[in-house]
Amino acid sequence: MDYKKLDKTSVIEHISKIKKIMAYFGADDLTAQEIGDGNLNYVYKISSVQNPQKALIAKQAVPYLRCVGEEFPLGRERMTYEIRALQKFYNILPSFIPNIYHTSEDMSLVVMEYLGSHVIMRKGLMEGVKYEKFSEHVSTYMSAMLFYTSSLHLSSSEKRAIIAQFNSNIELCKLTEDLVFSFAFMEHETNDNENVKNNPEAQKLFKDMKFKERVLELKYKFMTQSDALLHGDLHTGSIMINESQTYVIDPEFAFVGPFGFDVGALLANLVNNYIYHVVITKDEDFQEWLLVTIKEVLEKFSEKFLDFWAEDRESALLVEGYLDNETLLRYKENFVKNIIKESIGYAGVKMARRVYGVAGVAEIRGIEDKNLRAEAEKIALKIAREFVINYDKIDSVDEILEIVKNAG
Amino acid sequence: MDYKKLDKTSVIEHISKIKKIMAYFGADDLTAQEIGDGNLNYVYKISSVQNPQKALIAKQAVPYLRCVGEEFPLGRERMTYEIRALQKFYNILPSFIPNIYHTSEDMSLVVMEYLGSHVIMRKGLMEGVKYEKFSEHVSTYMSAMLFYTSSLHLSSSEKRAIIAQFNSNIELCKLTEDLVFSFAFMEHETNDNENVKNNPEAQKLFKDMKFKERVLELKYKFMTQSDALLHGDLHTGSIMINESQTYVIDPEFAFVGPFGFDVGALLANLVNNYIYHVVITKDEDFQEWLLVTIKEVLEKFSEKFLDFWAEDRESALLVEGYLDNETLLRYKENFVKNIIKESIGYAGVKMARRVYGVAGVAEIRGIEDKNLRAEAEKIALKIAREFVINYDKIDSVDEILEIVKNAG
Repeated sequence: MDYKKLDKTSVIEHISKIKKIMAYFGADDLTAQEIGDGNLNYVYKISSVQNPQKALIAKQAVPYLRCVGEEFPLGRERMTYEIRALQKFYNILPSFIPNIYHTSEDMSLVVMEYLGSHVIMRKGLMEGVKYEKFSEHVSTYMSAMLFYTSSLHLSSSEKRAIIAQFNSNIELCKLTEDLVFSFAFMEHETNDNENVKNNPEAQKLFKDMKFKERVLELKYKFMTQSDALLHGDLHTGSIMINESQTYVIDPEFAFVGPFGFDVGALLANLVNNYIYHVVITKDEDFQEWLLVTIKEVLEKFSEKFLDFWAEDRESALLVEGYLDNETLLRYKENFVKNIIKESIGYAGVKMARRVYGVAGVAEIRGIEDKNLRAEAEKIALKIAREFVINYDKIDSVDEILEIVKNAG
Repeated sequence: MDYKKLDKTSVIEHISKIKKIMAYFGADDLTAQEIGDGNLNYVYKISSVQNPQKALIAKQAVPYLRCVGEEFPLGRERMTYEIRALQKFYNILPSFIPNIYHTSEDMSLVVMEYLGSHVIMRKGLMEGVKYEKFSEHVSTYMSAMLFYTSSLHLSSSEKRAIIAQFNSNIELCKLTEDLVFSFAFMEHETNDNENVKNNPEAQKLFKDMKFKERVLELKYKFMTQSDALLHGDLHTGSIMINESQTYVIDPEFAFVGPFGFDVGALLANLVNNYIYHVVITKDEDFQEWLLVTIKEVLEKFSEKFLDFWAEDRESALLVEGYLDNETLLRYKENFVKNIIKESIGYAGVKMARRVYGVAGVAEIRGIEDKNLRAEAEKIALKIAREFVINYDKIDSVDEILEIVKNAG
């Protein structure tokens, strides 16, 4: 099928031909409503007029950046990788991925479950909502997704098949390489230059060669270390949540990269939220909940990753009988400790890039009071710098929490 | 064209249809002779009866391991990667790659320059021939090949295109993963079990968990670190040489892997040759020449790699203006030092695996006297162990030479 951009009317026509979708609705009285902040894509909520609780999401990529317009071309093939990642993650962990009703790489279209009773996690966290099951859920999601798409589990040919499927997600990887690892730390037109101009903190960051050299090391790893299939953009805006359920969406940046990148992205976003509550709400109880959550996420991630690994006897990496049990256990424990270290490094990069780079986070850039925003930025940069410079020397989760608490 | 296995007669028929080849010969009085030790493939020398100095090589892969027979299947697609690598390396460095006259992925066939005045380097070295231009040549070959196929030079999309071209060289990468990194260090049917049985040195190696844990770290890097396009099997049997020229052949193991793997393979083979001269010929002058050669190869490699890098201003990794010059220089120098360190590690693995694993080298396994062979093996394992365990702590080429000299 040839690609055609859908609108509110044609999306209904289009999906009405798909049996699985019509079987779900059990009626043909469908209506479409455009929703979502839609930076990149068009998102429609399709629902039944008679039974409005029956609803699905149709998401279609257009060959440009939607929020800017056709003058900013961006290949709609990004949806190809989103579809492949959703399917791959769904096969590993159906409970954390929305149900998929239809996908078409030709049409750059996915139709999936509408998460009507969930909110974007960033919003919930800013409102001080505690999600008590989150650390349990997200640690399962991350550990299973990373372990089961890595050479620690797969055979060599299975691993190479995943690389082949995602290797061409060039444009979005390049966006990360440029925007996350480079432009945000130097004078660049894409930055938030209203804030950068005459800002001594920004100048200090741009001249901090010790920090930037470490960022470059992490960028090189990002570009060349093929550990596992990553979500690629695992911030709290990519998580839909309520008290009992956690869904991870929007994996269009998916590619085979370093273990620590997703874990680091999540860590960065939880710390940014902590800073928001230090500077803005001053809600100490919620700050404490966030610290406990960070600790639980990282510790449960490590435990579960090791548990999955213990169930496996052979893989591309490990031939049974090669190491004795004691050495094997030590090797695995060191391996997972190194994932956490690397995650701290990536968390630092991710935090720092949100301060002056393109696309800030609501918790920092969204602060309207200039002085308070500057205070939040300063704390974020202090933590980010410690994370980036010392990530390979930080030996425990408690040390991470100390760095976060002491920066405020 | 459908694949068809060629023989001495049909190879002439086949290539007679290729204009470039017939233009080279300028006559149709061709004759074919089967040559080469031909472990994997069929190799024919095609020459003109009238002008026998006019000659080409036709090399064809068969879908099994030639030296064993059809009962050991091995995809003939390995020739696809050999062809692609020959072309890629030829485009970068024509002077070190034989002229290519014809390639066909369908036929798993390559027709190239016949190197009539060159010998296999391993043979020459065992005879004590000094190749005075070798360090200059091979350091250029390795530094250019690695630098120009890496993310230090290429754009993100160019790099990913190379990964796509070589990602499916699964069978040969798997051979290395198994035979080089695993089976050679444990009880396994593929080993030289006549020598392993009742050999306390073999038992010591197989139980050396400190060594084997480090090997596993290097294996993991081999499997997941996508630095540059590698030759993949750069031993002295893959080099054709004389006093004035050096050619690198047989890149069928080519894939995108860690920088240090090729450099390490070469280092291992030079050290193995050194051991041969310590134990068998006792030719001290040649031993000294080998040590100087090792030093020159590694130092020139580092210099040239940095020189190529200095000419580049932008790449997938480096955005101009991101680092100041002093930091950039330090970053690059550290980067290349780390390549050398990694090479030492891989050299250790490569040396150790030749002792008891499948496919030994002539310098060690070829020693007929049992006691002398055992002595050579012991020296090889001593050096290999130091290389593997301490590779990231060895800070200079002189330290490498000390380890080699002190082991004898």
